[in-house]
Amino acid sequence: MNFSYKNIDTAHRQIKNQIIQTPLISNDYINKKLNSKVFFKLENLQNTGSFKLRGATYKISKISEENKKNGVVAYSSGNHAQAVAYASLKQKINCKIIMPKNAPTIKIENTKKYKAEVILYDPETQSRESIGEKISIEENRTLIRPYDDIDIIAGQGTAGKEIYEQLMQSSIIPDIYLCCCGGGGLIAGTSTYLKDKFKNIKSFSVEPFGFDDTKKSLNSGKILSNEKGYQSICDAIITPQPGNLTFPINLKNLEDGIVVHDDQVKNSIKILAEHLKIIVEPGGAVAATAALTEKIDLKNKTAVVMISGGNIDLEMFRSL
Amino acid sequence: MNFSYKNIDTAHRQIKNQIIQTPLISNDYINKKLNSKVFFKLENLQNTGSFKLRGATYKISKISEENKKNGVVAYSSGNHAQAVAYASLKQKINCKIIMPKNAPTIKIENTKKYKAEVILYDPETQSRESIGEKISIEENRTLIRPYDDIDIIAGQGTAGKEIYEQLMQSSIIPDIYLCCCGGGGLIAGTSTYLKDKFKNIKSFSVEPFGFDDTKKSLNSGKILSNEKGYQSICDAIITPQPGNLTFPINLKNLEDGIVVHDDQVKNSIKILAEHLKIIVEPGGAVAATAALTEKIDLKNKTAVVMISGGNIDLEMFRSL
Repeated sequence: MNFSYKNIDTAHRQIKNQIIQTPLISNDYINKKLNSKVFFKLENLQNTGSFKLRGATYKISKISEENKKNGVVAYSSGNHAQAVAYASLKQKINCKIIMPKNAPTIKIENTKKYKAEVILYDPETQSRESIGEKISIEENRTLIRPYDDIDIIAGQGTAGKEIYEQLMQSSIIPDIYLCCCGGGGLIAGTSTYLKDKFKNIKSFSVEPFGFDDTKKSLNSGKILSNEKGYQSICDAIITPQPGNLTFPINLKNLEDGIVVHDDQVKNSIKILAEHLKIIVEPGGAVAATAALTEKIDLKNKTAVVMISGGNIDLEMFRSL
Repeated sequence: MNFSYKNIDTAHRQIKNQIIQTPLISNDYINKKLNSKVFFKLENLQNTGSFKLRGATYKISKISEENKKNGVVAYSSGNHAQAVAYASLKQKINCKIIMPKNAPTIKIENTKKYKAEVILYDPETQSRESIGEKISIEENRTLIRPYDDIDIIAGQGTAGKEIYEQLMQSSIIPDIYLCCCGGGGLIAGTSTYLKDKFKNIKSFSVEPFGFDDTKKSLNSGKILSNEKGYQSICDAIITPQPGNLTFPINLKNLEDGIVVHDDQVKNSIKILAEHLKIIVEPGGAVAATAALTEKIDLKNKTAVVMISGGNIDLEMFRSL
């Protein structure tokens, strides 16, 4: 498979007027605390509240006019769902979304707000992939996969292109890149772009405890699944194993994986609220958590930290 | 008095490396709701959590080396306090801050964190101006006024220069500018810059009910005070009357004033959290409130809305 920054440049030309160029910001309190220079990429400020809009917008823009008439279908715990629903609404395409019945209320409600038909399933007993494939075949709908699709990876990678351009405005060369990792689409795309532009950058995936399939797979050089029986508040990045397309890219680009715990994530959400004045969902805060808990030494280094989404139920946010 | 965009350009050259160029972002949910294009300037993401750092940094940078040795003194309900303390710490100047004893805890604590000596006073019985003047004279400290100072106005105005440059990147011409107004420094500076660059822009001050001294003064053409006996959660912009320097500028630049109510402000803080994923303090949310409650018709218009600060006690934020 041939995937490079060029795929991302192409995706960016296509979608740049349909997405927000999200801010890349630094915060003195955190820089001082970590004795480093940290730049946060605020994809929680993206329309639909997460980076997922990038890949969904690009993928859907590439569907043929003929196929657009049959509509699309997607499965997702919530952020990809909202993004596909939103992009479909914008491009006037009928949309069905398969979501776990225990997804955060805000994500289910927003998906419905964007006029998608939501089909809830029980993640304990049903497979979202099979439901998705079935609907796709029976109704001739284009299936919009959440990460294992080269156009989705290229679309998410446009966040990396923006980071590069934003850093270049101040001639800043980053040493470290920290990014959350579920299926691995965002980190595969963004790390590809950043590695091409910054030859010496070291990129790390960050995952919640019990769901460190990417770390384990990176360390053993082959795709491994998570053991069953774990739970995490980081709903956005709970995936059983790395993607068949994303993993080879991540194996090439990443140094290693980092694991964080839910209670540490809760604490980072508080710090990000108090000092950065932003609302971040648990899955969107894991990379910041790796930095704030000093799981990786950033002293005297320049780091880019991905804040991938902000779709947290306000009730849960309150409870933190 | 001769004040123009040139003062702001000069201030910007001096402070641009000591402040954050804060994001200017748009949000599809809000644009659709209002049927307009709204750009929010996120000064809540500024270091110290508000725009006040701009003016304080500029003013302090202009103190002579001789006077720097004697330190500075400032009075403030909190955001100016934090900004002066922070800028003093950065420039290694001794700093005393006079704060009302009922200021939000987060503001008092942050001011202390920046190593300032905090002197609490009772706003019911004591005058912060006299305490400030007294300390200034007795200890030979430079008094850093919160708004009625041409360098402070120029410093706050740098946010307007950024808005101009950010809009120009996409060749966008705004029709309307909405900005909170306490003493009027921020709106005086920013509206001066925007009016110079966008000849047809209409700028409006936004104030909380009971504290609409600027609106009343604009309407009568002379400085009027608020009546006593009102209360508001918008602590950052509670001032008795417009400034002697800020008012003539605002009288020249502004179309009119808009008044919003505390319960409307609370609701906007929720909307900004849910849809923009940002944390805004009450005083920082009044301009957004004017837009969201449609106190001004933004239909088919392009508007810039100032989000001036994010220093809200998390307990209060929770309670909303």
